[in-house]
Amino acid sequence: MKQVFYNLLQSEVKIINIIAKHYVRQKGKWFRPVLVLLSGRLCGELTAESYKAAALIEMLHNATLIHDDVVDDATVRRGGPSLNSIWKNKIPVLMGDYILARSLTTASELESLKAIEILSSTSARMSQGEISQLVKSRKKDITEEEYFQIISDKTAALISACCQLGGITVTKDIEKIAALESFGEKLGLAFQIKDDLLDFQGEEKVFGKKKGTDIKNGKITLPLIHALKQVDRSKKYRVIRKVKKKANRSDVKSVIQFIFDNGGVEYSQNKAESIIKEAKNALEVFPDSVYKKALLELSDYVLNRNK
Amino acid sequence: MKQVFYNLLQSEVKIINIIAKHYVRQKGKWFRPVLVLLSGRLCGELTAESYKAAALIEMLHNATLIHDDVVDDATVRRGGPSLNSIWKNKIPVLMGDYILARSLTTASELESLKAIEILSSTSARMSQGEISQLVKSRKKDITEEEYFQIISDKTAALISACCQLGGITVTKDIEKIAALESFGEKLGLAFQIKDDLLDFQGEEKVFGKKKGTDIKNGKITLPLIHALKQVDRSKKYRVIRKVKKKANRSDVKSVIQFIFDNGGVEYSQNKAESIIKEAKNALEVFPDSVYKKALLELSDYVLNRNK
Repeated sequence: MKQVFYNLLQSEVKIINIIAKHYVRQKGKWFRPVLVLLSGRLCGELTAESYKAAALIEMLHNATLIHDDVVDDATVRRGGPSLNSIWKNKIPVLMGDYILARSLTTASELESLKAIEILSSTSARMSQGEISQLVKSRKKDITEEEYFQIISDKTAALISACCQLGGITVTKDIEKIAALESFGEKLGLAFQIKDDLLDFQGEEKVFGKKKGTDIKNGKITLPLIHALKQVDRSKKYRVIRKVKKKANRSDVKSVIQFIFDNGGVEYSQNKAESIIKEAKNALEVFPDSVYKKALLELSDYVLNRNK
Repeated sequence: MKQVFYNLLQSEVKIINIIAKHYVRQKGKWFRPVLVLLSGRLCGELTAESYKAAALIEMLHNATLIHDDVVDDATVRRGGPSLNSIWKNKIPVLMGDYILARSLTTASELESLKAIEILSSTSARMSQGEISQLVKSRKKDITEEEYFQIISDKTAALISACCQLGGITVTKDIEKIAALESFGEKLGLAFQIKDDLLDFQGEEKVFGKKKGTDIKNGKITLPLIHALKQVDRSKKYRVIRKVKKKANRSDVKSVIQFIFDNGGVEYSQNKAESIIKEAKNALEVFPDSVYKKALLELSDYVLNRNK
C-alpha cells in the first residue's frame, strides 16, 4: 500500500518526491484504506479499482491533514514532525493541493461517476466542517448539535466515503452501498468522538500528540461541552475563559480535571459506544463472513484504541 | 455568470457565504469562462453543461488564486484586498479547498469522465507548477526552459482545460478537441508571459497590482531571464543579488531599468507574439465563423491588454 501511494505521487518536481518519501516513512494506522478494502470484500471479490480506491482515499486524507496542520499550526503528525514544521506554510499548502489533485486523477481512473460524486461532495463537506470548526472555535460557546454537524462533515464524511467506495468497486447493489454509507457515517462519528477523548486520555508517547492540545488551541469538543452543561453560568464562563485565552500548562490541567469531575469523559465514551452499536446494526443486511466480523471488530477498535 | 457562481458556492456555513459574496463583488476579467463558452460555441450549439463548465472553471481558478495569494503573501487581488489580507491564512486555505471541492461537484454533474480526467490532471499540474516556481525562486538562477515548464503547468494547463471543456460539452469530435487543447496551451503560455511583462509595463491603477511586485518577491520571469543572458557573470550575479535580498524601491527601479536596457521586455513581447501566432494556427481546422473570429480577437487581446 505504501509503495502504491508513493508511486502515485511521483512527479518530475524533486521536492514533491522528497515530501512523498517523508510521508511514506511516517507511521500511520492506514485505517481508511483498510476500511475501503474490507467494505469492498464484504460485497464480493476485490477488483483492481478497489486497491486504487484505497490508495486515493489515503491520499485525500493526507492532503486534508497537511492543510489541517497548517491551519492548526500543528508541529507533530503521526509521531514525526508535521510538514509545516519543516517547510513552513507555503510548500504544505501547495503540496496538499497536489496530493488532492493526484487523488482525483486516480479517482477518474475508477471510471465511475458515482465515485467522483462521492469524493467531491466529501471533499466539500470536509473543508466546510473545518471552516465551521475554525469559526465556531472563536466563539465562546458551541452546542452539542453544532459539534455533531462539524464532526459529521470533517470526519464522518470521509469514513463513509471509504465504505461506499469500497462497495462501489465491487457491486452495483444499491441497498448494500447505502448500508455501507450509513455504517461509515456512524463509525466516523464515533471515531472523531474517540479522537477528541484521546486528547484527554491518551499518553503522549502512544498517541503522538501532546495531551490537552485541543484545549490549548481553544478547541471545545464533546467532553468539555457536556461538562460545561453540568455547572452554573459563572463557573461555565470561567472555564471557557481559560480555554480561550491560550491556556498555559496548569490551565490545561485544571480544565482536564474539570471535564473528568463533571462526567464529560464518561458521557462521551457512552455516546461513542451507542453510535458504534448503530453502526454495527447497519451491517445487518450482510450475511455473516470473516469480513463482516473484521468490520465489527474494527468498530470495537475505534472505541477502545489508545492512539 | 456571477449569480451562477455565487449560487454554486452556497453553504449552511455563514462565513462561506460572506466570502462568496466578497468574491462575486470583485472585478474580474472572466477570461476563462468566456473562453469555455467561445470554445464550445466554435463546435456547435452550447448545452446546459457548457455553462456549468464555465462556472466550474472560474471556481477552480479562484480556488487556486486564493491559495496562491496565501503562498505569495499577496495583499491585493483584482483591485481589492486579497482574502488572506482580511482573514489571515487559515480561512483562505480552507476556503480554497472548499471552492475547489464545489468546482468538482459541479464537474461530476457534467457526467463526463473525460472532463474529470482533464480537471484533475490540470489541477495536479497547477500545484506542481506553483511548487516548482516556489522552489526555483529560492535558487539563484532559472533557465528559460524551466520558466516555460513552470508557466505551462501553472497557467497554460488551466487555459487549455477551458478550451477542451468547452469543446467536450458540445462535440465528441476528437480532432476538434485536440485543436482546442493545443490552442489553449499556446494561448495560456502567451497569457502568462504577458502577465509577467505587465509587472514591468502595467500602471498600478489599471493592473490592480504594484509595479515590480515579482522582483520584490524575488521571482525571476522571462524578461529578466533574457536580460541576464546579455551581460557577463559578475553583472548577472549583482542583479540577481538585488532581486533575492528583498529588493527595496530603488533596487526594483534599477532592475526594471536593467531589463529594458537589455532587451528583456522586447524579447518577451516578441516571444508572446510568435506563440500567439501558433495558437491562431491551431484553430485552422475550424471553418470561419463569428466565434472563431472572437477567439482570434481574444488572442490579440491577450497580447495587447494593459491589465
